[in-house]
Amino acid sequence: MKYKDSGVNIERASRIKKTIGRLAESTWSKNVLSEIGNFGGLFLLPKEYDEPVLVSSIDSVGTKVLVANMAGRFDTVGQDIVNHCANDVLVQGALPLFFLDYIAAGSLEPEVVVSLVEGLSKACRENQCALIGGETAEMPGLYQGTDFDLAGCMVGVVEKKQIIDGFRLRPGDTIFSLPSTGLHTNGYSLARKIIFNELKLTLDDHVDEFGSTVEEELLKIHASYVRPVTDLLHRVDVKGLAHITGGGVVDNLPRILPASCDAMIHKGSWPVPPVFTFLQEKGGVGEKEMYAVFNMGLGMIVIVSAEEENAVMKYNGEMEIYRIGEIRKGRGKVIFE
Amino acid sequence: MKYKDSGVNIERASRIKKTIGRLAESTWSKNVLSEIGNFGGLFLLPKEYDEPVLVSSIDSVGTKVLVANMAGRFDTVGQDIVNHCANDVLVQGALPLFFLDYIAAGSLEPEVVVSLVEGLSKACRENQCALIGGETAEMPGLYQGTDFDLAGCMVGVVEKKQIIDGFRLRPGDTIFSLPSTGLHTNGYSLARKIIFNELKLTLDDHVDEFGSTVEEELLKIHASYVRPVTDLLHRVDVKGLAHITGGGVVDNLPRILPASCDAMIHKGSWPVPPVFTFLQEKGGVGEKEMYAVFNMGLGMIVIVSAEEENAVMKYNGEMEIYRIGEIRKGRGKVIFE
Repeated sequence: MKYKDSGVNIERASRIKKTIGRLAESTWSKNVLSEIGNFGGLFLLPKEYDEPVLVSSIDSVGTKVLVANMAGRFDTVGQDIVNHCANDVLVQGALPLFFLDYIAAGSLEPEVVVSLVEGLSKACRENQCALIGGETAEMPGLYQGTDFDLAGCMVGVVEKKQIIDGFRLRPGDTIFSLPSTGLHTNGYSLARKIIFNELKLTLDDHVDEFGSTVEEELLKIHASYVRPVTDLLHRVDVKGLAHITGGGVVDNLPRILPASCDAMIHKGSWPVPPVFTFLQEKGGVGEKEMYAVFNMGLGMIVIVSAEEENAVMKYNGEMEIYRIGEIRKGRGKVIFE
Repeated sequence: MKYKDSGVNIERASRIKKTIGRLAESTWSKNVLSEIGNFGGLFLLPKEYDEPVLVSSIDSVGTKVLVANMAGRFDTVGQDIVNHCANDVLVQGALPLFFLDYIAAGSLEPEVVVSLVEGLSKACRENQCALIGGETAEMPGLYQGTDFDLAGCMVGVVEKKQIIDGFRLRPGDTIFSLPSTGLHTNGYSLARKIIFNELKLTLDDHVDEFGSTVEEELLKIHASYVRPVTDLLHRVDVKGLAHITGGGVVDNLPRILPASCDAMIHKGSWPVPPVFTFLQEKGGVGEKEMYAVFNMGLGMIVIVSAEEENAVMKYNGEMEIYRIGEIRKGRGKVIFE
């Protein structure tokens, strides 16, 4: 009996790893000391930090992988996971340094893995971080058919004195938001249920509300906020950042709110992408539930003092920024009005 | 419609996260600045490094999760993944700093997740690294029934001048090995096929060759070599380390061999755990295939110059260490004799 007979093809996996290695190298800076194939990825910490604090985040794109699989399109979820994790380290004020991916499947289809890693590499280059390692695991018996899972871990760095943590938030501070591109990587189980099970739509169906096909809407890439937020950090004193992911603004914004503050959010002060209105109406989902599951167009929350408000309003970067509310005295909650 | 109806229970996930948080805290040193619940885990880099190089590794325990699931025992695979990743950063001479886990399932059973994290935390304490973050993803539609996947990412640090990379290996150097406890986390697809499909054994069957039940053998914990290797690094000039994982010694040792050197391995110079002989005989697996799939008792390869050989032989740590071969002139291959 050979290992191949059990569904694991080490030879094919080795071949894929060479292509992955070439793609990964396209993301490397002089700080990367290793070659893929070493046991660990080696990254020389940049010298400019007095008290470097490493900020790390691990995540997956959730069941968005199932949509990617249905569509046979894999590069976009590759970009999603990198951008998602980059945003998570960014909210503490850290810049992404390096990323490691985890791809698991019942059978590693070379073209799928390569396409995923093309997406990972593209996003790593855009976020100026190095794809320094990864694991492609062939696990027959756990993943069915062409199913696969995709996760990743980002490590960034911030000077200790410059950590952003929300501790300085005070009543009167102003809440801004950078827009999401759509669902990002959250709420896909519910979205899939409404779109495919209830409405019986297919990926190729054009939906007027989306102005695109179902596939195009559902595979929109999770925005990276690294460039716009870095721009803002150079211009204004940012007191708090929150990446709006699973659990929506209701769950994620309180993670940085002091216990004595509420976040007052003014509905209508930012554009809600049509995909959310569509899911709410067609799926018969209550508005409260919508805000507890989806980002509703709020991709990255940025909080500054009232004095800095004008500086933010004058900011003219690659993304719109919306003034959506204020910090008030309260009990650590998000309140809509 | 509610998010729960699509199979995702955010409320239950939040409750689990609190317990996870408490377990994770048991692993924290003063360098951990974050509380779980922040977007990223925060780790203050220790001050004692002139040119700190971060060494990172991401991996999974492969289809060993399926055995854990059959057995309804989850703490051991939690320890497996931490030890596995700790060994991977260790081979570059790095000490583990912090770990992040990824747990994915169709439905997050609180007792399963908590048991997994108990294992992760125990191993993190033993390896003196902090469990600093993690993702528990509920993905109905991707994972069937009680199936789950477990992966993790370890970040360690090494002084640049002290990186171990095998570049200094020369003909005449001596090859040692620290023993594996058994299969560790590799070759489970083949082992499961032989044990469950061919031999029709069950987890509770006692196997004389193992001196234990199938369950006890298959869930033996992947050894951590952090303590014995750290001990050795203090006493001898270690020129090369290789963690023997998927692909066996045949694939993993060449990762550190210079192109002009072969590794000559003397069969019979170390004890092969009975599980391997059993699988080879009962499964009708060729010896060459065995060495290309399994660790065959070789857990961690340690290479020193011939002059240092006696210092290693006199080493009397918590693990046996076996002299298994030498480096010779060659072409970057492993040769058995």
